[in-house]
Parts: sequence; C-alpha cells; structure tokens
Amino acid sequence: MKKNKVEDWLKKKRDFRESLSPTDLFEGISNNSRTALSASITLVESQNTDHRKAANELLQMCLSRSGKSIRIGITGVPGVGKSTFIESFGKVLVQQGKKVAVLAVDPSSSVSHGSILGDKTRMNELSAMDEVFIRPSPAGDTLGGVAQKTRESIILCEAAGFDVILIETVGVGQSETVVKSMVDFFLLLMLSGAGDELQGIKKGIMEMADALVITKTDGDNVRKANQAAQEYRNALHLFPPNANNWIPQVFTCSAYDNTNIDKVFRVVTEFEAKVKENGHFDLTRKTQDKKWLKETLKELILNDFFASEVHTQALKELEKEVVDGKLTSFQAAEKLFKQYKDDGGV
Amino acid sequence: MKKNKVEDWLKKKRDFRESLSPTDLFEGISNNSRTALSASITLVESQNTDHRKAANELLQMCLSRSGKSIRIGITGVPGVGKSTFIESFGKVLVQQGKKVAVLAVDPSSSVSHGSILGDKTRMNELSAMDEVFIRPSPAGDTLGGVAQKTRESIILCEAAGFDVILIETVGVGQSETVVKSMVDFFLLLMLSGAGDELQGIKKGIMEMADALVITKTDGDNVRKANQAAQEYRNALHLFPPNANNWIPQVFTCSAYDNTNIDKVFRVVTEFEAKVKENGHFDLTRKTQDKKWLKETLKELILNDFFASEVHTQALKELEKEVVDGKLTSFQAAEKLFKQYKDDGGV
Repeated sequence: MKKNKVEDWLKKKRDFRESLSPTDLFEGISNNSRTALSASITLVESQNTDHRKAANELLQMCLSRSGKSIRIGITGVPGVGKSTFIESFGKVLVQQGKKVAVLAVDPSSSVSHGSILGDKTRMNELSAMDEVFIRPSPAGDTLGGVAQKTRESIILCEAAGFDVILIETVGVGQSETVVKSMVDFFLLLMLSGAGDELQGIKKGIMEMADALVITKTDGDNVRKANQAAQEYRNALHLFPPNANNWIPQVFTCSAYDNTNIDKVFRVVTEFEAKVKENGHFDLTRKTQDKKWLKETLKELILNDFFASEVHTQALKELEKEVVDGKLTSFQAAEKLFKQYKDDGGV
Repeated sequence: MKKNKVEDWLKKKRDFRESLSPTDLFEGISNNSRTALSASITLVESQNTDHRKAANELLQMCLSRSGKSIRIGITGVPGVGKSTFIESFGKVLVQQGKKVAVLAVDPSSSVSHGSILGDKTRMNELSAMDEVFIRPSPAGDTLGGVAQKTRESIILCEAAGFDVILIETVGVGQSETVVKSMVDFFLLLMLSGAGDELQGIKKGIMEMADALVITKTDGDNVRKANQAAQEYRNALHLFPPNANNWIPQVFTCSAYDNTNIDKVFRVVTEFEAKVKENGHFDLTRKTQDKKWLKETLKELILNDFFASEVHTQALKELEKEVVDGKLTSFQAAEKLFKQYKDDGGV
C-alpha cells in the first residue's frame, strides 16, 4: 500500500473506533504512516496489561527494521538553548536529506506535569516539516520506566524509516547517564560565562560527551565563548583517552547567526565513520543492550509485584501502620518482603 | 561513658581489628562519638549481606533517638555556589548553638567516580568544626539505592544528636525529587542572569522550593540579583498555594559579603513553627514514610533477585545471547522473567 492509502485506511478505522492491531500498526509504520507511529508510541507508553502485550508484539515485528539510524543524545542545563539548537540542527539534517525524529527523556515531567518538548511551538518550523517527527517525553513514576519507553520509541521511529534520532534531556544528573546508555553520540551544550567555566559543570557529564558545543556564540558573546571553548579543550586533555579512540570535539555555535550548526553533523558523521571502522559502534550498542536487558528485567519484576492485588492490599495496611507510628517504613517494608518470600517468591 | 572514653575505646577496638557490633556502634553514637558515626554510615552503605543485617539492627536501635532534627535540602545548578553557601550557612547555624550534619545525594557519583562533598577542602572552616559532621554522597548503581543510604544516614546523624541536617544535591532533575521526599524544608539556590530568568529553571523544581535564594549578590551583581528576586516573586504568585499554607520566600544573599545568610535560618525557623502548628510538619513526614516504605520494598525485591546465583548465572547466559545478536534485550528479559515466575516467583 502507498503511504497515503495506509494513512487514510488507519484514519478511517479510528473514525469508526476500531482498534488497531499490532499488525495494522506495523503495516502503517512500514509505510511511513505518521498516524501509525503516533498510535504505536502511545501503545508503548500505556501501562495497561493488554496494551503492553500488544506493544511487545509490535516491537518484535519492528526489530528487524530497526537499528539503522544514528542516535544522538543532546543535553545541557536549562537556559542553554536546547530547543533553539534542535530547531536549527534539525533543519540542517533535513537539508542533508535526513528524516529526523526528536524524542525526550524528562524524568521530572511526572512531578511538574510539564515536559520538555511538550510545547511544540518552541520548534515552530521544525515541527511543521514532513521529514520530522517530534514527540514529548513520556510521563512515568521512575526514570527507568520513562527511559524504557523512550528506548522502545526509538525502535518504532527507526522502523518508520527515521535515520537520525535526537534524544533531548535536561539538566545535570541521572537522566544524562540514562540517555548516554541509549545513544551512539552524546552532545553536551554549554553556556559560556555561567559560573566557573571548568568546575561549573560536573566532570562526570563532561566525560560522557563526544562533543561539547558552546551555544549562543553571537553578538557580545563571541570573545567569551571562544575563550571558554579553549578552556574546555585544555580541560578535556586531562581526561583519560576514550576506549573508542575518539577525541571529544569542542567548538562554538550560534543558532541565531546559524554558524557552525552544520559542523555538528559533520562531526557526528566523522565519529560514526571512525567507530564503525574500529568496531566500537557495535560494541557500544551491545553493551547498551546488556544494560537494557537488566533494566527491563527490573521493570518486569517490580511491575509484576505491584500488579498483584494481594501485595497492594498488604501495602495499604502497612502504610496505615506506618502513618499511625506503629511501624517504621523500614520495618514495614521488611515485613511485607518476608511475607512475599514466605508465599513462594524466589 | 563520657564521649572521650567511648572514642578511645572504639579506636582501641579498631586498632586491634576487632569488629564493632551494632550495640558498640549504638553506644558510641549515643555518646556523640564521631568514630562510631562514621563507622555506622560505612556499615549502612555496605552491600555485604552480613553488614546489611547489622545495619538494620543498628538502625532499629537508633530510631527511638531520631526524628528530632530539622532536615533541609539544598539544591541549585552547578556553579551556583552550593559549597560556599553551605560553608557560610553552616557557620551561622553553629553560632546559633546547633550541631550540623551535611550529607549529599549525588546520583552521578557512580559514573564520575567523583562526588559532591567529596572534597571537604571546599568547606575548609566548616569541616574543621567540632559541631559539624560532613559526609560525601554514597556511591550506588541506582538513585534509589543512593537515596536509601542517605535516608538511613539521616537517622544515624539524628541519633548522634545533630539537630540540623543539610542534604546537598546537584542540578535539575530526578535527584531533587528524591531529596525533597526526605527533607522538611527545601531550599533552591539560583544565579541571577544565567539564561532566561523565569523559563531557565524548570517549573517543577521551583514548585518544590520553600525558599528561593539568589546567591552571589555582591559587587556588580546586586542590582541584577534584586531584579531577578522580584521576577521570581511575581512568578511564584502564579503557582497554586501550598497545602501547608506556607508562601515560599524569595531573597538574595552573598556568602562573600555574608549578607542574608542568617536570614535563611530565620526563614527555616518561621517555616518550622508554622507547619508544626498547622499539623503539616507531621503530615509531610508521614507521607514521606509511605513513599520510603515503597522504595525500600523495591530495593529489597531487586536486591534479593540479583543476589541469587541462579538468576545471575541465567542473566550472564542471556547477556551472551544478546551480544551475539540471537535475542534482543527485551526478549531476553522476558525469558528470564518467565523462568523466574515459573520457578515460583509470586
């Protein structure tokens, strides 16, 4: 079926409130249907047990078509200009003939009930493009859960033919580590002059970066930004070399003046060629897969525990005892755990 | 026993490489022994099963002596001057006759192998004071694990008679949420002029703050900082009122000029009086206990799963299949989970 035909057919099914089967969705995704891709991600994000089963079937079908994109993580403190950068960078990618999906991992969205990428109007031109798909961060109680869903969304986007996946995340913390573990290339955006240049940013985040780009290098900011870039370059020399032999690049850019935005993609391409040649591209993906095996397993175990009526009921009663000051949270947890083991938990 | 006697006795035991029992440690902690407190936190941080058992015994003994401090969370982006602020703030607290413990939650320390508060020399004068105890962030694979240990350390510090517990955390992300859930008062440090004043910081973090303090209000920075304070005050008006009836305070400070540092503690004291009167102090702690019951339970379940030789062996074999491209990480996780359930996992 041609793309438009699939699109029409899916839309008609939905109009009649017919539910889309995993096979329908896969057919749609394989034919670049945006409706199918959106519906598939919604399915993957659902907590409902039946949906989860359908999502697993769909992912299974998509796996053979996935894995062929380059996955780029983008981070930086709030105010660094991530949206503006992604808007400019995305346009450069489209000019190069790429299909671009933009996803997000925002663990705080479940608290703030807001979300990065939630407001597509921040990426006005980009979100209007046919070659671009933008999806806000899934909500979730745990960073692991949020990340799991984003990782599954990557597979869906790849199966839908997107060849560059951008994954935005916020701030400085655990979420960077999680995004690093699902991307091929990790980009750290930085501001010049925001606090102490070298100590201001945590060493751990700098160590993860494959490129460090100083944003907003325009107007009065140019001299300061170039100086900051030099300081970072010097600092990076002090780090041990990467196993993949890649030397992290440091440069300045301006989304406002549109300078050096294209350089970011040239650097990514260079990186990709190098690590594919020396085998580290595959090696990294395999290491990531091992990590994700463990993470998925943890989610499965915990979801299963809390899905049980017996456990949630016991938890409710113990909560009451904790609130009444009869038990501490530690004692209550151990009591329920002991009960669980006695009932046959292995 | 007097403090010094206990200190000597514990040191002597250690010199002879005798291990300290939970009762020894509790005796030490109750007599303000720093050696005992340090050794107890190390015990709590250990992953070893026997240590864990001893730690639980010790915590059980300490619980009756705990809960009487005021727990203050402190956060802000890197470069905001957290260490300098804590150094000044800690000295003010000591002048007021308080015993101050400083702990940290830094989920990225397991990646960077560095840690906030790891370098005590950043808090030169404070760390030298008798009334002050400083301990870097525990390392850990999961934010939940790191937080759990910090929460247990709070109990130990309280049992050792510390009446103000400061808990430092980094950046903007999940770790703030976790620290918020273990403190009575949450303090957000901010810089003026670092990016867009109101959009630069995530709304979710601002909503959590009981006070918002603009640091480095000295020299050329004063006018800009006062203006920023006014903007934040206006912004906070747009938020829905807190259930505890507390209106978050916004003000400027300078650790360099030592202005308004004492005001922070006055605000905390005011807050404490208000929420103790209207019952929200207890209510918040109880809500936190419920959350910690669930978190502790999750840790117990997962630690138990991965402590089993059978599971780790099966995991190793599945990892190999994933790396060899025979299974995806999703398939492998589900296979092991199914096996676990079939073996009697409830």
